[in-house]
Amino acid sequence: MRKQFAIIGMGRFGSAIAKTLSQLGFEVLAIDQNEDTIQEVSTYVTHAVQADSTDEEAMRALGIRNFDVVVVAIGEDIQASILTTLILKELGIATTVVKAVNDLHGKVLKKIGADKVVYPERDMGQRVAHHLISSNIIDYIELSADYSIVEMKASKQMIGKSLRQLDVRAKYDCNVIAIKQNEKMIIPPSAEEALKQEDILVIVGKNSSLQTLEVTFAE
Amino acid sequence: MRKQFAIIGMGRFGSAIAKTLSQLGFEVLAIDQNEDTIQEVSTYVTHAVQADSTDEEAMRALGIRNFDVVVVAIGEDIQASILTTLILKELGIATTVVKAVNDLHGKVLKKIGADKVVYPERDMGQRVAHHLISSNIIDYIELSADYSIVEMKASKQMIGKSLRQLDVRAKYDCNVIAIKQNEKMIIPPSAEEALKQEDILVIVGKNSSLQTLEVTFAE
Amino acid sequence: MRKQFAIIGMGRFGSAIAKTLSQLGFEVLAIDQNEDTIQEVSTYVTHAVQADSTDEEAMRALGIRNFDVVVVAIGEDIQASILTTLILKELGIATTVVKAVNDLHGKVLKKIGADKVVYPERDMGQRVAHHLISSNIIDYIELSADYSIVEMKASKQMIGKSLRQLDVRAKYDCNVIAIKQNEKMIIPPSAEEALKQEDILVIVGKNSSLQTLEVTFAE
Amino acid sequence: MRKQFAIIGMGRFGSAIAKTLSQLGFEVLAIDQNEDTIQEVSTYVTHAVQADSTDEEAMRALGIRNFDVVVVAIGEDIQASILTTLILKELGIATTVVKAVNDLHGKVLKKIGADKVVYPERDMGQRVAHHLISSNIIDYIELSADYSIVEMKASKQMIGKSLRQLDVRAKYDCNVIAIKQNEKMIIPPSAEEALKQEDILVIVGKNSSLQTLEVTFAE
Amino acid sequence: MRKQFAIIGMGRFGSAIAKTLSQLGFEVLAIDQNEDTIQEVSTYVTHAVQADSTDEEAMRALGIRNFDVVVVAIGEDIQASILTTLILKELGIATTVVKAVNDLHGKVLKKIGADKVVYPERDMGQRVAHHLISSNIIDYIELSADYSIVEMKASKQMIGKSLRQLDVRAKYDCNVIAIKQNEKMIIPPSAEEALKQEDILVIVGKNSSLQTLEVTFAE
Amino acid sequence: MRKQFAIIGMGRFGSAIAKTLSQLGFEVLAIDQNEDTIQEVSTYVTHAVQADSTDEEAMRALGIRNFDVVVVAIGEDIQASILTTLILKELGIATTVVKAVNDLHGKVLKKIGADKVVYPERDMGQRVAHHLISSNIIDYIELSADYSIVEMKASKQMIGKSLRQLDVRAKYDCNVIAIKQNEKMIIPPSAEEALKQEDILVIVGKNSSLQTLEVTFAE
Amino acid sequence: MRKQFAIIGMGRFGSAIAKTLSQLGFEVLAIDQNEDTIQEVSTYVTHAVQADSTDEEAMRALGIRNFDVVVVAIGEDIQASILTTLILKELGIATTVVKAVNDLHGKVLKKIGADKVVYPERDMGQRVAHHLISSNIIDYIELSADYSIVEMKASKQMIGKSLRQLDVRAKYDCNVIAIKQNEKMIIPPSAEEALKQEDILVIVGKNSSLQTLEVTFAE
Amino acid sequence: MRKQFAIIGMGRFGSAIAKTLSQLGFEVLAIDQNEDTIQEVSTYVTHAVQADSTDEEAMRALGIRNFDVVVVAIGEDIQASILTTLILKELGIATTVVKAVNDLHGKVLKKIGADKVVYPERDMGQRVAHHLISSNIIDYIELSADYSIVEMKASKQMIGKSLRQLDVRAKYDCNVIAIKQNEKMIIPPSAEEALKQEDILVIVGKNSSLQTLEVTFAE
Repeated sequence: MRKQFAIIGMGRFGSAIAKTLSQLGFEVLAIDQNEDTIQEVSTYVTHAVQADSTDEEAMRALGIRNFDVVVVAIGEDIQASILTTLILKELGIATTVVKAVNDLHGKVLKKIGADKVVYPERDMGQRVAHHLISSNIIDYIELSADYSIVEMKASKQMIGKSLRQLDVRAKYDCNVIAIKQNEKMIIPPSAEEALKQEDILVIVGKNSSLQTLEVTFAE
Repeated sequence: MRKQFAIIGMGRFGSAIAKTLSQLGFEVLAIDQNEDTIQEVSTYVTHAVQADSTDEEAMRALGIRNFDVVVVAIGEDIQASILTTLILKELGIATTVVKAVNDLHGKVLKKIGADKVVYPERDMGQRVAHHLISSNIIDYIELSADYSIVEMKASKQMIGKSLRQLDVRAKYDCNVIAIKQNEKMIIPPSAEEALKQEDILVIVGKNSSLQTLEVTFAE
Repeated sequence: MRKQFAIIGMGRFGSAIAKTLSQLGFEVLAIDQNEDTIQEVSTYVTHAVQADSTDEEAMRALGIRNFDVVVVAIGEDIQASILTTLILKELGIATTVVKAVNDLHGKVLKKIGADKVVYPERDMGQRVAHHLISSNIIDYIELSADYSIVEMKASKQMIGKSLRQLDVRAKYDCNVIAIKQNEKMIIPPSAEEALKQEDILVIVGKNSSLQTLEVTFAE
Repeated sequence: MRKQFAIIGMGRFGSAIAKTLSQLGFEVLAIDQNEDTIQEVSTYVTHAVQADSTDEEAMRALGIRNFDVVVVAIGEDIQASILTTLILKELGIATTVVKAVNDLHGKVLKKIGADKVVYPERDMGQRVAHHLISSNIIDYIELSADYSIVEMKASKQMIGKSLRQLDVRAKYDCNVIAIKQNEKMIIPPSAEEALKQEDILVIVGKNSSLQTLEVTFAE
Repeated sequence: MRKQFAIIGMGRFGSAIAKTLSQLGFEVLAIDQNEDTIQEVSTYVTHAVQADSTDEEAMRALGIRNFDVVVVAIGEDIQASILTTLILKELGIATTVVKAVNDLHGKVLKKIGADKVVYPERDMGQRVAHHLISSNIIDYIELSADYSIVEMKASKQMIGKSLRQLDVRAKYDCNVIAIKQNEKMIIPPSAEEALKQEDILVIVGKNSSLQTLEVTFAE
Repeated sequence: MRKQFAIIGMGRFGSAIAKTLSQLGFEVLAIDQNEDTIQEVSTYVTHAVQADSTDEEAMRALGIRNFDVVVVAIGEDIQASILTTLILKELGIATTVVKAVNDLHGKVLKKIGADKVVYPERDMGQRVAHHLISSNIIDYIELSADYSIVEMKASKQMIGKSLRQLDVRAKYDCNVIAIKQNEKMIIPPSAEEALKQEDILVIVGKNSSLQTLEVTFAE
Repeated sequence: MRKQFAIIGMGRFGSAIAKTLSQLGFEVLAIDQNEDTIQEVSTYVTHAVQADSTDEEAMRALGIRNFDVVVVAIGEDIQASILTTLILKELGIATTVVKAVNDLHGKVLKKIGADKVVYPERDMGQRVAHHLISSNIIDYIELSADYSIVEMKASKQMIGKSLRQLDVRAKYDCNVIAIKQNEKMIIPPSAEEALKQEDILVIVGKNSSLQTLEVTFAE
Repeated sequence: MRKQFAIIGMGRFGSAIAKTLSQLGFEVLAIDQNEDTIQEVSTYVTHAVQADSTDEEAMRALGIRNFDVVVVAIGEDIQASILTTLILKELGIATTVVKAVNDLHGKVLKKIGADKVVYPERDMGQRVAHHLISSNIIDYIELSADYSIVEMKASKQMIGKSLRQLDVRAKYDCNVIAIKQNEKMIIPPSAEEALKQEDILVIVGKNSSLQTLEVTFAE
């Protein structure tokens, strides 16, 4: 049987989760305190109900126990986020994913049993920061504390040269794993073909290596 | 000379940008309306000033024209976000990156000249949704409208098999670009070595191909 | 077929437009967020509905696309004014006339496609300022950046003299285009008849010429 | 000696009056309750002071008695508008011009001695309504209850015809008093010259006659 | 036919008027904006309706024109007090009695036609002040600007003396018009009988004379 | 030594008491929580201080124990009125006069030791009600539960008749104790002289008798 | 017949009283101003009604006179607490128990007739303070101003000794009245048996004696 | 060395703890967010500082690590209570005693490491409930889930009888551990002496036994 999802809090973060899951064909129960929000959400999720997630009886009545994964995407109300998470764990939910607004909040969530704690704005801020550094950097994604993926426009120095000539691997200890040409993605990229203007390189490597690369080809 | 950055709005998103840029060694001017916020921010950015970004004179007095990139990370106040962006473009800022809270807001920003519009909570919501689908999926990152990167724990069916045996390329039209083993990242991954429990595969491919893969190995 | 008008925002400005158009025999759709306001407005316009103009679906449901001219007379809420205007242009309204509260607001409106931007309080302030200068000046209307029309009571020096004697044309480079006598309007005015106390001259000319005239005959 | 003006209430209406009078070379005392507003206003008027106009002692201390004309441009606070006006009349101000927000407010102002009562938003609404009727109408100004001036683009039927041929006087009982060509104003207009596209006619006449004209040439 | 009364504003002052008139056998219409207040008032007046007295149509609909006397007992809302009074005079009410909160308010009311302006708290304050001066003074009532009535306990010096002996008339130019003995009132008082402890003298006279008397017998 | 007064609460009632006592030459200490109010009051009383009367230490520090009479004229805040009164009695003030807003409040004040409880708005409402009944009644003052004084204009039936002819004493069991003629007060009134138009009779009697009189001579 | 209880104010204190009485088998009427609170309370008390306890009529209508004991557990609203108590005493309730928030409040309650005044947070604070002093002290309960009961873990020095050996009576003038062993309570305690770790002594004595004891055995 | 205490939150509960500890001779650090509260508290504790307890840096700066016991007596703000407790545990405080407002709050506190959770209002409510049952019961204190102590006035049936005659032990399985006579406490009580009116028995026993006793002797 497919997984069952419930998302609590239909702000921008929660509703993007609900919408994406629905588009991937999953059944989603959307929960929010606000009647108007629920009405709007009901146009793209299977079930949308107005309820107070800090009211254990209300959660029980919704049959929340039957859901495999519950996301607590409550925005600013730290108290509601904490109490909701506790209720979910008391009711025996296997996987709870909870949005935190700061470190302290995140620590409390961990202690009361949240299975995964996410910091959406902070993570996005970190990604966006990397884009800003060089007009060539299009995206920057952390894989682990040490490794990241960078999407980078071919800089002037690169154009006309093949990947073999650039030898990113040897010189910068990074791997070019794909090249985007317009809407097309070449995976794995050809080592011989010369880079053209507008080509975008997808590169994986250690953060320190990637930063050397970024700075070397910055314009 | 290195790029100069100004970040307007020190909420969770804006402050994460400012902090990351500072850690990468860039000079950052942080601007916020709130005196207390500025005091806190000043511990990790080069310059932090309290100012109203919708006041053209105030912006001019800060020498905002000298900055290469200005990020407008104003949270909920759509009006302030729009007016600030217009002022920045009128003052001739080359690159403005602006946070939008919804599509309509984003469209207005584009029309008045914002160079890049970002939707942090929505983008994070989409990423998180993919993680939820399978307990094997650890991360999911869109490279383009069609291509994405997926981080996936080796599922039970994979363990003990080599990449050659799994032949992800032929069967699912995807490329395994790296394998994470504990804190180590193997790039490119060895084709012969058998996958171990807790190994994480970093895979790139078309969205449709990745989804087939995700569902096949879901547990 | 006669033009169709919709007016959004039933404050003093919007309701005066709606009332005047109705009195001229046009059909008007009045839209406001406030239920009480709509009830009051419904006594003098053809259709009055309570709706949120920043909700694209609601606007579409009202058939706003069928209107030739839509006036956005939203008072103080700059954000609602901007978003409403964008929605109207996206829906393909041919002519949007939008009230702005200041220059910055006006510029945003122009950039997002507003066809005409009006500043009612500022324009009235300018007109009233001219009345104040001389107790003879009754009204002052800008025709262009350079030309205006002035209504002016016959001053003591003028009474008993004919227009020919005063020779406003030659001396001040202005034209007397009408004379109001009580409720009667004499157009064009007789050149020979002597001016009487309480006569009002309607004069057109360059701003600089009119100001010379105003000051000369000020009392 | 030149007239002395004081303007109480530096909203959009009041500040437009103050600015216009200053530009015309008059000394203006601007009064507002808000310290910030006063700071801003002080950049373009001779004197700007923060004061509560319902405090008789404060008004006396400002030497308000010495002003020939005092405009009460207080926005929404009907009570403050009434009490301020009474204080001004008790102090012997010769001419008080007061903004009213509705008829009832206007009647009270008249009874307690206001010399002139103005309704800026309502008046502007009426003017704007006329512009909307025909895309040719550029402006519409009431001279009296019966007579108005209309600015009207030459419609298709008019182009290539002379004023003599159109014979507006005989056919519609209206007078063309000027023709705007680009930035130039031709007063009085030539009777023989053919109208060109983009020419704008300035016409004076009875309201009923003008409306017939408007409708005849509407496009 | 008996007079018809309407009282607008059911605060402590207005409701005391309504209650007293009802107890004297008159029909009273009580009007207040607050539904709860009206419910409470309806237990002791003939008619009680919830209505907004600044809404001319609402007042007309209540048939307010048929009332001989209308009391405007609106507490703190000066604007509502003024607008209500104007509406009542416009509707032709013969007698309007209006509560004012200060001199300026009172002057406006007079100018717009209020027939009688009262200052209940101020008047009561003045009366109470006189009681405080001497522990013998029980009440103090102004008859005119010059004359008052004082109720005064027989002081130690008075006890055992007859009115003839005290000769208040000759010595202080005041008249003892009554003597209260317990609950009984002796009018006119006997000139010969000796005053007893607890007797209360009701005395009329010029303010200056009464004050001399008060001070002479103060304890 | 003269009495010392302190008045707590400088609303309309409290300030009228303070002003009247000051005009009668007494020293008054005015206390209010509001700094602005105190500044205004200080123009007409000997001492005015800003203090919180529910703070026992603050009251003690003001030396409130030294005052003979303390008036608690706190407006709407029943809690503050009660706590202040209790503190005053605990501190040993001989005479406390306290304003009550309703019966329940009054009862609490009596129980906790208030020496005199006054209801200014209610008392004034009762007086004003009597004026309204007949256009002849000018004032109405209760002397006791059973006796009152009425000021009454000479009605049409009275004019030209002497007091002897009217024989108010015999017919209505009331005493005419004075006649006001213009600004003059005739005490005791002459029995023989005929009443003139505009004469005002000051009459004392039982409430029931006075009401019979009022109704008989009502116009 | 069993006693009848009414509890006014369903905060944490009031609802704990209501719940405990219900569990002991008594009928309880719970009264609160808040509809939601009442709905929740109705799950564990016999009768729960929404009512304003400062409205004498409402209290009368509930038949409050028939209750033997009424608890006024109103939280922060001192005014409501006072007025409710007065109404209850006027209605003749035999026993009123009222929560006070501070000494002044408590004094007012006593003066207007409250039969018992309680200070729950203060009393609990005092008890908790004693627990904090020594990690051996588990509870501390005042019996009178001079005597208390202390629950105390057997300290290291006590273990292995019998009560006879410790001779608390002679040495500290205190009586060990019970010993808790796990969930069991030994009353009276055996004089001979040696104390074991985790044993808890329940001791009664003078406050001064107990404090000596506490300090002696503190760890 | 004596224990060091810090109390966070100076409401009624927190300040009672602080005051009691101070009176017992301990040094106490009182912390509250409110400046005024701190000023008041500083009159009876050793150290009182204004600080935000959810600010880790502020807590560190106060040297909170040096305290043996920290009480979190924050009233209604559940979020602040939780975050403060977490910070204290992160900083390594040995003993944290935290006030909870309901069960859910209490559970969160336990999970994040609070050493003791207290519910002051609920506990007091339970104690007071027992007092109410019988007019003889003066106090009721839980020793454990099963055992309690009751203070009970000698009922009519008891007076004149000795403890031996009553034989509470045998009949009700309870122990009379003390008798209060006026201000004197007799421990242990004499078995032979007859009980007098106003004597108070202090009895310990199982809850069920005590309730039987309470009901038997209820009046």
